[in-house]
Amino acid sequence: MPAALSPAPPAAVETLRWIGDAQGHLMLIDQTRLPGELIEIPCRELSTVWRAIRQLQVRGAPAIGIAAAYGMVIGLQSTVVGTATTANDFQHRLQEVNNELAASRPTAVNLFWALDRMRAAAARALTVSGFGPSDWLAALLAEARAIHEEDRQMCRAIGRHGAGLLKSARAVLTHCNAGGLATAAYGTALSAIFTAQDQGHLLQVYVDETRPLLQGARLTAWELQQRGIPATLICDSMAAQVMRENRIQAVIVGADRIAANGDAANKIGTYSLAVLAAAHDIPFYLAAPSSTFDLQLESGDQIPIEQRAAEEITESFGRRTAPPGIAVYNPAFDVTPARLIRAIITERGVISPVSRASILAQLQPAGVPSRD
Amino acid sequence: MPAALSPAPPAAVETLRWIGDAQGHLMLIDQTRLPGELIEIPCRELSTVWRAIRQLQVRGAPAIGIAAAYGMVIGLQSTVVGTATTANDFQHRLQEVNNELAASRPTAVNLFWALDRMRAAAARALTVSGFGPSDWLAALLAEARAIHEEDRQMCRAIGRHGAGLLKSARAVLTHCNAGGLATAAYGTALSAIFTAQDQGHLLQVYVDETRPLLQGARLTAWELQQRGIPATLICDSMAAQVMRENRIQAVIVGADRIAANGDAANKIGTYSLAVLAAAHDIPFYLAAPSSTFDLQLESGDQIPIEQRAAEEITESFGRRTAPPGIAVYNPAFDVTPARLIRAIITERGVISPVSRASILAQLQPAGVPSRD
Repeated sequence: MPAALSPAPPAAVETLRWIGDAQGHLMLIDQTRLPGELIEIPCRELSTVWRAIRQLQVRGAPAIGIAAAYGMVIGLQSTVVGTATTANDFQHRLQEVNNELAASRPTAVNLFWALDRMRAAAARALTVSGFGPSDWLAALLAEARAIHEEDRQMCRAIGRHGAGLLKSARAVLTHCNAGGLATAAYGTALSAIFTAQDQGHLLQVYVDETRPLLQGARLTAWELQQRGIPATLICDSMAAQVMRENRIQAVIVGADRIAANGDAANKIGTYSLAVLAAAHDIPFYLAAPSSTFDLQLESGDQIPIEQRAAEEITESFGRRTAPPGIAVYNPAFDVTPARLIRAIITERGVISPVSRASILAQLQPAGVPSRD
Repeated sequence: MPAALSPAPPAAVETLRWIGDAQGHLMLIDQTRLPGELIEIPCRELSTVWRAIRQLQVRGAPAIGIAAAYGMVIGLQSTVVGTATTANDFQHRLQEVNNELAASRPTAVNLFWALDRMRAAAARALTVSGFGPSDWLAALLAEARAIHEEDRQMCRAIGRHGAGLLKSARAVLTHCNAGGLATAAYGTALSAIFTAQDQGHLLQVYVDETRPLLQGARLTAWELQQRGIPATLICDSMAAQVMRENRIQAVIVGADRIAANGDAANKIGTYSLAVLAAAHDIPFYLAAPSSTFDLQLESGDQIPIEQRAAEEITESFGRRTAPPGIAVYNPAFDVTPARLIRAIITERGVISPVSRASILAQLQPAGVPSRD
């Protein structure tokens, strides 16, 4: 059964928590119940993790990857009870669990990346002489914890670099949810705001509600409120007026995919904000892990734009708000050209000005391969 | 009882219709039931007209004025039955009806303008020797019909001038509802689109849903659909992407108030569209009757921006979509500076380029007083 948390707000959002040792369990916040209710789902069965990913109770690429990694541990727990389990049994069950989790959300790249890492860790553990079933399981938990911790460190590093850029701002505007709920902690764009707060600089934040799915209203507003950061919700169409009234000094958002030249895909409405920010001479920042870069893409023109269902716009509030049969254009993302991005913030530092050369200069020393 | 219309769509939306002679009645489309149901309300009692205005079953400044004018006829009908009614009785009842209708929506300027015209018409009729109660009532109906017809002519003239500007466009974008539902027929911005259709030029129309109250999704999409004009609904945040993909060749919207220098107040989100259109080199047109100009205002800075209730954003779909206690900024309007407006279309013609001089040149020959 889901456990309701106490009404007192926690100091920080913990999207995922592992409780106990390798026979322990995963707790994750049910994001479909926010902002109405803060409910944690205890995951003790593989099917519970599977359903959480499938039904978007956990969302955001990094968070999905972490949930899947812990899900693999949970899926192997019963296999190692007793001593009769062979390496073959373990390997066989590992593949079953892998296949089941892979089918939970087949388009989530981070899900496969995490499952691959977990299988590689298991393969290494299985070759260690003297290791038994509980050691193999412990090795899986260690790898899941490493994935979780690496994401946490990545978010915190983005936060430190981003907070530096926001030092002179009193208020910022953000779009969609690039916060802790999508990651291990702190998020990407919101991490810069949270880190500023940790450093004693309390920013005011204007939050685009982010139609059609209202991630800004439902998730970002909630995360900011939990942290005691003054947040003001607006409709997406009000951002220009907020800029015109000099209410904000920066825009900061996340990114889903960044091309080699710095063109960046993100939630629909991001490009609009970038154009408006340029027209009001307000810096537009993008925060994302370096893994978001896809150097195989020359420019944003090569990023395909997913079209989503009409009902997201015509019926997204449980009530039909447009005439039946009306045509709908519902792109999930848009692409912001590099020229409109003042800086890209990754865990490695700040890329500014944004260009093919400055991006390669930051990414290649650490071994991200060039296209050539 | 409301009468459901037949499912076959009418050729054009008739927001208001008077049926019969001076003892007849008013039919008006219940705009609160759109787009789900097309229902006409028969108004045979003053209280029905009063409630329709109060509860926004009829909305849009011109439509409210016309409804109030017919409402005055309805309010006087019982007074003239029989022959014992004196001029004093009529005058007394006229004032009662006037006061009642004036209280239905005290901020609607057109409501008072229409009531004033109706009282002036009554005053003239009451001085005609030989006129009796039924003549006085007939004079009231004639004046209501004149107000109705003048609005229809005004809309059609705006449509003709506007259609001329859209000759080379294949598709346009509009915001909110500046259509027939707000007026006697055809509307202002939509009138240009409807007139183009009448002239054999079928434009495709992208419709901003227009958060928070979704007038675009609920009303404009429906009006276009009724007329068989290909309409595509988008979220407000998608307009920039639609422009970037060269899907539209013009933006055309209405206006609520225009200052002497051409700065124009309209539904929130209009300013955003104007900035985005300029950035994509797409002409931005504004269509409104010349009565929308307020030459007492030097510039848009003097136009006060109404702030509306937070619940319009947090609960506007009958379901709470943001955390309780979140701050909200909800301006009803924004002001678009004249420099972003390619042309203003009135019933008198096209003002372009938009400047204090070009506005005065169009308005003053016909007697609109200057500030000086």
